[in-house]
Amino acid sequence: MNFKELASEYKTPLYVYDLDYMSKQYQELKEAFRGRKSILAYAVKANSNLSVVKHFANLGSGADCVSIGEVRRAFLAGIPAYKIIFSGVGKSDDEIREAIEKDILYINVESEAELFRVAIIAKELNKISRISIRVNPNIDPQTHPYISTGLHDNKFGVDINTAKRMYIFSKNSDSLDPVGVHFHIGSQLTNLEPIYESAVIVADLVRSLEAIDIELKFFDIGGGLGITYDDEATIKPYDYAQAILGTLKGLDLTVICEPGRFLTANAGYFLTKVLYEKQNGAKKFVVVDGAMNDLLRPALYGAYHRIEAITDSASEPRTVDIVGPVCESGDFFAKDYLLPELNHNDLLVVHSAGAYGFGMGSNYNTRGRSAEVAVEKGQARLIRKRENFEDLIALEKEFLEN
Amino acid sequence: MNFKELASEYKTPLYVYDLDYMSKQYQELKEAFRGRKSILAYAVKANSNLSVVKHFANLGSGADCVSIGEVRRAFLAGIPAYKIIFSGVGKSDDEIREAIEKDILYINVESEAELFRVAIIAKELNKISRISIRVNPNIDPQTHPYISTGLHDNKFGVDINTAKRMYIFSKNSDSLDPVGVHFHIGSQLTNLEPIYESAVIVADLVRSLEAIDIELKFFDIGGGLGITYDDEATIKPYDYAQAILGTLKGLDLTVICEPGRFLTANAGYFLTKVLYEKQNGAKKFVVVDGAMNDLLRPALYGAYHRIEAITDSASEPRTVDIVGPVCESGDFFAKDYLLPELNHNDLLVVHSAGAYGFGMGSNYNTRGRSAEVAVEKGQARLIRKRENFEDLIALEKEFLEN
Ligand SMILES: Cc1ncc(COP(=O)(O)O)c(C=O)c1O
Ligand SMILES: Cc1ncc(COP(=O)(O)O)c(C=O)c1O
Repeated sequence: MNFKELASEYKTPLYVYDLDYMSKQYQELKEAFRGRKSILAYAVKANSNLSVVKHFANLGSGADCVSIGEVRRAFLAGIPAYKIIFSGVGKSDDEIREAIEKDILYINVESEAELFRVAIIAKELNKISRISIRVNPNIDPQTHPYISTGLHDNKFGVDINTAKRMYIFSKNSDSLDPVGVHFHIGSQLTNLEPIYESAVIVADLVRSLEAIDIELKFFDIGGGLGITYDDEATIKPYDYAQAILGTLKGLDLTVICEPGRFLTANAGYFLTKVLYEKQNGAKKFVVVDGAMNDLLRPALYGAYHRIEAITDSASEPRTVDIVGPVCESGDFFAKDYLLPELNHNDLLVVHSAGAYGFGMGSNYNTRGRSAEVAVEKGQARLIRKRENFEDLIALEKEFLEN
Repeated sequence: MNFKELASEYKTPLYVYDLDYMSKQYQELKEAFRGRKSILAYAVKANSNLSVVKHFANLGSGADCVSIGEVRRAFLAGIPAYKIIFSGVGKSDDEIREAIEKDILYINVESEAELFRVAIIAKELNKISRISIRVNPNIDPQTHPYISTGLHDNKFGVDINTAKRMYIFSKNSDSLDPVGVHFHIGSQLTNLEPIYESAVIVADLVRSLEAIDIELKFFDIGGGLGITYDDEATIKPYDYAQAILGTLKGLDLTVICEPGRFLTANAGYFLTKVLYEKQNGAKKFVVVDGAMNDLLRPALYGAYHRIEAITDSASEPRTVDIVGPVCESGDFFAKDYLLPELNHNDLLVVHSAGAYGFGMGSNYNTRGRSAEVAVEKGQARLIRKRENFEDLIALEKEFLEN
């Protein structure tokens, strides 16, 4: 990947995605589930650029969506309705209505109250809504608290007993069709054990539902597969699939997997240019043109991203903080990082930026969001234009006259 | 303020700003500096809606800007060039160029390397650039580490000795005119002592510069005045002004103050509707239609916001977590908060949301940003339209065909 050329053609800050790497990840995971009916439903939230979603659509992927906006993205990108799932703890009535009208594969329901809303709305529409229930298996996923979702003290899913009650309600409802069960215990998981334990619990639920004549078709194992940001050992797709499939003996279920980060994180690079170096007390800072509004993960989670300098500098590496122009101390990309002396306009490549990068971007400090570029078979193309000042004020300018 | 009516007219999630409250805060602070030449330069980053900035322009305010985008907002809103300041640790060449061409009051320079860029660019433009230097007084402001900026181990400003060297360089340069000195040690300050100590240090610097014939005109004390989110005792504007003015004896300087939060935070309300309540294990959750993409402060800083329920519910208050629909455990507005039992469509009012609220908003999970409404003399009016799906994909849709 010629980062220097990309930066000079498209300017910085810039997101670059390697679509071929995404394909490779997709194929590897899909292959792991061979021998069993399976759908990979790409978790659109990880990287929701329409061209990225379309790339997955072309590979045969489904979509896991957490807002009606993501559902619309999936449709626009060409993912067929029967491979689209709508998840999320807080769906508005309008969102539920549209999801039912669009006849997607199913709605992942996360609470009893939501189930009642879905039933009411489906009835109003004179439709039967396919649903799945998100079960919270109460297993510690051993990841960052902000992206951990499998314990009872967080907002996601329902416990097994509540789930059972909800399945029975659904079975008895003439506007609901319970077709699946769902769990997702967290993101950036690097330990197979908690996933396996969760799958055991949820597969048991499926069996106990069969015993009362509730036959599910889909076993939705969520996403969460971790990737290597630094030197993390990750779960092998083959081991992952084997562990899951091992819990499903005797069950005729289509496995649905909702990978996000695994498919896109290491396909993405955030390119930013050096503005200045400065020394404050004992600390050396490299100030770059990208900021927390472009890539929030370090500020929000203290996340680590590997950073590579593209420079002619031949100096010895020194310990620096890499920071952006935003007026917050939380605006940093790395702390105590080793980099050689850098010059104005040298390029830094922030790795593993393809998931939860651009999508969490904001216009804080009236900074337009970066452009996004896709690289496929050696060819680069723009997939989202850089936001300019006019874009930023478009929805408020007309009110200035009042 | 009739929140129920506002929510029903403009829908939720919604930001509402009380412009009269902003005026009151502005007047109180301005009044505190009476008897001394002063400019309040509103820190646009706190709330950059054009109509809000225009409101301050009408009150006679200047603008403290941290990107060229904010400078353009200030101009559009009618703030005169001679009251506009451009601050920030990382200014790009293009930004510096435009700031010089627009002939703003001065550029707050944050490093030696930046000063050299300003000098080069001013020379290229055949102009003289007025500058001020941001000094880092190495005083602990006693606030959240992410919004603390006055210690040497953070990226902001330069130490006193570096500042002196930079003033001498500027004085000798034929493209620089050093007119001010600047410090800002952090935000949400509730303790006067660190501000006073910083002012003493910086006033001493001004005196030592006078001794070598460098005469400054502006003493820019930054922003940072804290507000009451919960039960914080805050600094009184009068005491603040007196403390600052006390350090300036014998100096003929215009005081510039850059308040952001103080002017807008408690003028703002974030309105969100209850979608569902749910119980997970021992925890009760209230799921609302607003999320971290609308108001990031709780997720980013663990910030506290007072939350008021508008409901007919007569139940006893229970301890709940108030969470949004975004698929992150960090997506919450409050934890262990006392609220009565709530019904679908009940309204929650998140207080103190007028600063660092909308401006840090994102489209994470393909959620359009809220509308913004201003209330002035009892009249409400839209000042920014709700973002819809078409707005979100506007810059990427055309690339879908490739
Ligand atoms: C329900 C659900 N599915 C899938 C994902 C994707 O997770 P990951 O990107 O870790 O694969 C998430 C992430 O938050 C999620 O909440
Ligand atoms: C240089 C500068 N001035 C003013 C402000 C405004 O601060 P506050 O909103 O706390 O008044 C900030 C905030 O970060 C700042 O960095």
